Amino acid sequence: MSKEVYEAISPADFFYRNREIAGFDNPVRATYTIIRELVENSLDACETHGISPTVYVNLIEGERQGVYRIRVEDNGCGVPKEYIPSAFGQILFGSKYVLRQTRGMFGLGGKMAILYGQITTHGSVKVISSTGGPVKYQCDLMIDIQHNKPILMRGGIKSLPNPVYWRGTIIEFDFEGDYSRAKSKILDYFKQTAIILPYANLAFISPEGIYYRFIRVTDDLPNIPKEILPHPKGVDVELVKRLIKRTRAEGMLEFVTYNFHRVGRNTAYDLLNFAKIDPKKDPRDLTSDDIVKLVNAMKRYDGFLPPDASCLSPIGPKLLVKGIEKELKPEVVYAVQRKPTSYSGHPFIVEAAVAYGGGVQPPKPGEVNLYRYANKIPLLYDAASDVSLKVIKSIKWNRYKIDLEMPIAFFVHIVSTKIPYKTVGKEFIADIPEIAYEIEWAFKTCARKLKSYLTGKARKIAIERRLGILEKYLPKIAQFSSELAGRNNSINVERLLAKVKR
Amino acid sequence: MSKEVYEAISPADFFYRNREIAGFDNPVRATYTIIRELVENSLDACETHGISPTVYVNLIEGERQGVYRIRVEDNGCGVPKEYIPSAFGQILFGSKYVLRQTRGMFGLGGKMAILYGQITTHGSVKVISSTGGPVKYQCDLMIDIQHNKPILMRGGIKSLPNPVYWRGTIIEFDFEGDYSRAKSKILDYFKQTAIILPYANLAFISPEGIYYRFIRVTDDLPNIPKEILPHPKGVDVELVKRLIKRTRAEGMLEFVTYNFHRVGRNTAYDLLNFAKIDPKKDPRDLTSDDIVKLVNAMKRYDGFLPPDASCLSPIGPKLLVKGIEKELKPEVVYAVQRKPTSYSGHPFIVEAAVAYGGGVQPPKPGEVNLYRYANKIPLLYDAASDVSLKVIKSIKWNRYKIDLEMPIAFFVHIVSTKIPYKTVGKEFIADIPEIAYEIEWAFKTCARKLKSYLTGKARKIAIERRLGILEKYLPKIAQFSSELAGRNNSINVERLLAKVKR
Repeated sequence: MSKEVYEAISPADFFYRNREIAGFDNPVRATYTIIRELVENSLDACETHGISPTVYVNLIEGERQGVYRIRVEDNGCGVPKEYIPSAFGQILFGSKYVLRQTRGMFGLGGKMAILYGQITTHGSVKVISSTGGPVKYQCDLMIDIQHNKPILMRGGIKSLPNPVYWRGTIIEFDFEGDYSRAKSKILDYFKQTAIILPYANLAFISPEGIYYRFIRVTDDLPNIPKEILPHPKGVDVELVKRLIKRTRAEGMLEFVTYNFHRVGRNTAYDLLNFAKIDPKKDPRDLTSDDIVKLVNAMKRYDGFLPPDASCLSPIGPKLLVKGIEKELKPEVVYAVQRKPTSYSGHPFIVEAAVAYGGGVQPPKPGEVNLYRYANKIPLLYDAASDVSLKVIKSIKWNRYKIDLEMPIAFFVHIVSTKIPYKTVGKEFIADIPEIAYEIEWAFKTCARKLKSYLTGKARKIAIERRLGILEKYLPKIAQFSSELAGRNNSINVERLLAKVKR
Repeated sequence: MSKEVYEAISPADFFYRNREIAGFDNPVRATYTIIRELVENSLDACETHGISPTVYVNLIEGERQGVYRIRVEDNGCGVPKEYIPSAFGQILFGSKYVLRQTRGMFGLGGKMAILYGQITTHGSVKVISSTGGPVKYQCDLMIDIQHNKPILMRGGIKSLPNPVYWRGTIIEFDFEGDYSRAKSKILDYFKQTAIILPYANLAFISPEGIYYRFIRVTDDLPNIPKEILPHPKGVDVELVKRLIKRTRAEGMLEFVTYNFHRVGRNTAYDLLNFAKIDPKKDPRDLTSDDIVKLVNAMKRYDGFLPPDASCLSPIGPKLLVKGIEKELKPEVVYAVQRKPTSYSGHPFIVEAAVAYGGGVQPPKPGEVNLYRYANKIPLLYDAASDVSLKVIKSIKWNRYKIDLEMPIAFFVHIVSTKIPYKTVGKEFIADIPEIAYEIEWAFKTCARKLKSYLTGKARKIAIERRLGILEKYLPKIAQFSSELAGRNNSINVERLLAKVKR
């Protein structure tokens, strides 16, 4: 029998070997994914700090065929000097590992983009960043994939003068790609991003030298997403163990009150009573069994308030309508925001819109014009497996006088501190019943409005047709009646018609 | 502006935080995934060593509601003592990181199952294993998630006598699950596994105490999958750098000959000439630019033989038919194995079958009875996004006198040293053109056979109907003719009919 060879690999090595699960299947897909991941990091760096985003993307074809140079510049918060090497050269390192609504979740995408550039061209990445002080920092780095560590090239991090106090990040590297076949998805991505971010300036210069600009139409920014404590309904044994390790609380009452979302002193007392744990007990004295007991009590106890969604940053029906009108110019669009709710302790909000007519084209036979967004990211791949499409297919549209072959576009936007993606490539959302329910009712609300619009429009057309008939025959009837009555002064038909119209 | 908090997390912590991407969305899904991942590890431990697999799975409901104890026992190769802690308690550690056809690819699933048990019950996992010597080893362990390290409990690894020289692995732990809602998928999983493994014994004792047995119907085993060198067409800069680091070759000619799949001395010489690299150059003297030049030359050079698929382990049409007949009892089944081919340097083989009638039911309206397999794993989720379904929907079935509403089941099995899964939960396969092409022609070949069977069957029915008519009228015609001819001795109609039937 042959011997099995056992070995450990680093997370960088894992994602290098399995890059297709992060969206790097082939040069076409990689071109799209690189742009998307870098743009999303830039947008997060702006929005989590309340900055109106301005992001420039420049893609240039290199000398060797199929090699491109990407450059992305943003006006975000910048990365402090000491974190630059790891933030760009170490997989599973970042600032996204807190409970907060961000596009990034995995601390993976940007680094995978850099790693893909490195393995296809053996080039390094150039990073320039400043948090807005009198100095900006520049370095070239590569990733040591086997050890998951950044390697600084050519003299490490250089300090450069920053007389204009510029703040932001510039990232630049080469990769092997295929723009011509990725082009339509990339332009879709920018267009759909412009819809959900009517308050952002986006610019993309393509390898053909075409300058695509998406200009902000509003200065209103959604509120800044806030970090929150974990809700007790979503807690597991591991998390409680970690919280105990770092707490300074001396008693369980204090521990529960300060470490969980929406647990006040009274609820904490009630919960501990329910769990049969002494409120005065030192958290560090909890046995394994005690921890399991506490977690189970948290799952069964029904006195908690639902997670507070004020930490979330939806864009709101007004901005959603603005974005759709700006990019699609529909005849009419209705948007709705559902009330905040939660699944497994994670707060979420569903926003949806339905646009009709004008610039909206009818879908291809058997398809649906569905624009999916999650935490302001457009999702362009694998719609077939997404929860939203399942919901659309389950609704009886004829009740709303809607037929899926009409020129209708559906928009759905889910914001949450934890989007239940099924892939690290962030392509589609798992079929969570609570989310499906919210999407269904959001669409139905918009559909009801569209129905009354369409009914109204149909009635208006019918009335206009009737008025047309009146306009044609009324003068004759009037004349005939006058003659019949033997009166000479004919009736003022115009005044009569104007009355009817009113 | 608030400060961003940067931190690094371990791979165990990453998958703990994002367990839904590994198939651990909720208690129902987790119950299914745990069974599946453990069974697959057991099957790999048998088949990679040419052992006919016998796997027992036992699921018992615990005292606390919703808590189960899983126990899986196999007769596989066993894990050597020194590797037991890491093999079961460290994410991204394993024996699956070589180019070889195995079910496992990520070194992740089994450990994620254990981790899920730990975070829901705070229990440890018990492992008993032996490679067949006079000693077997037993230990209890937990995973230190923040540091991705195994923690041995209660006195470490114990040596126990093994008088019968038992060989295999037993793994046992508690987890929170939901069997009643996962049941149908779990039973599907066993049934579909039994189809693709007619040479395996599988047993499952459910929490209700029902004993499901799937008994082997053949002693034929597919050949053992072999480890191969990387094919030059699938190579990147990182891989060449790693190979240079560990090679003992003194010249490039030797380096290229010994490190790549299907590269002999002549091809190596030709390739280096094409890449303009001196065959006598020391590999360690290659500059970064040289490595890039070599990799590009490998991509463009067209003198390589395609990857050799003898390292693969398809099950073959004979066993595929046996498995389908055993579990589905169709009226007829046709199977085909396509010739080996490759995508991006990875060899693969597609096998397919089409079963008709008998125990095969017509699909639900709008659906297709599609059984998908990859490296002998049944894929049960997210069929909508899978390449096979796209292929089925693209084929013009009426040309084969087939209508997707007939009682037909489709089977597709892809084996490769690298299955292009889109998720670490191994649910669906990416749309690789080379793979789609092979699937299409495999199905078409089976469909052609089914067409001639159905045509033959229709003809036979027509003939039988005609014979029925003859049987009814021939005696009368014979009698009438005899009378007309004035002859008394009537014709032997039976002999005549028998002649026609022949």
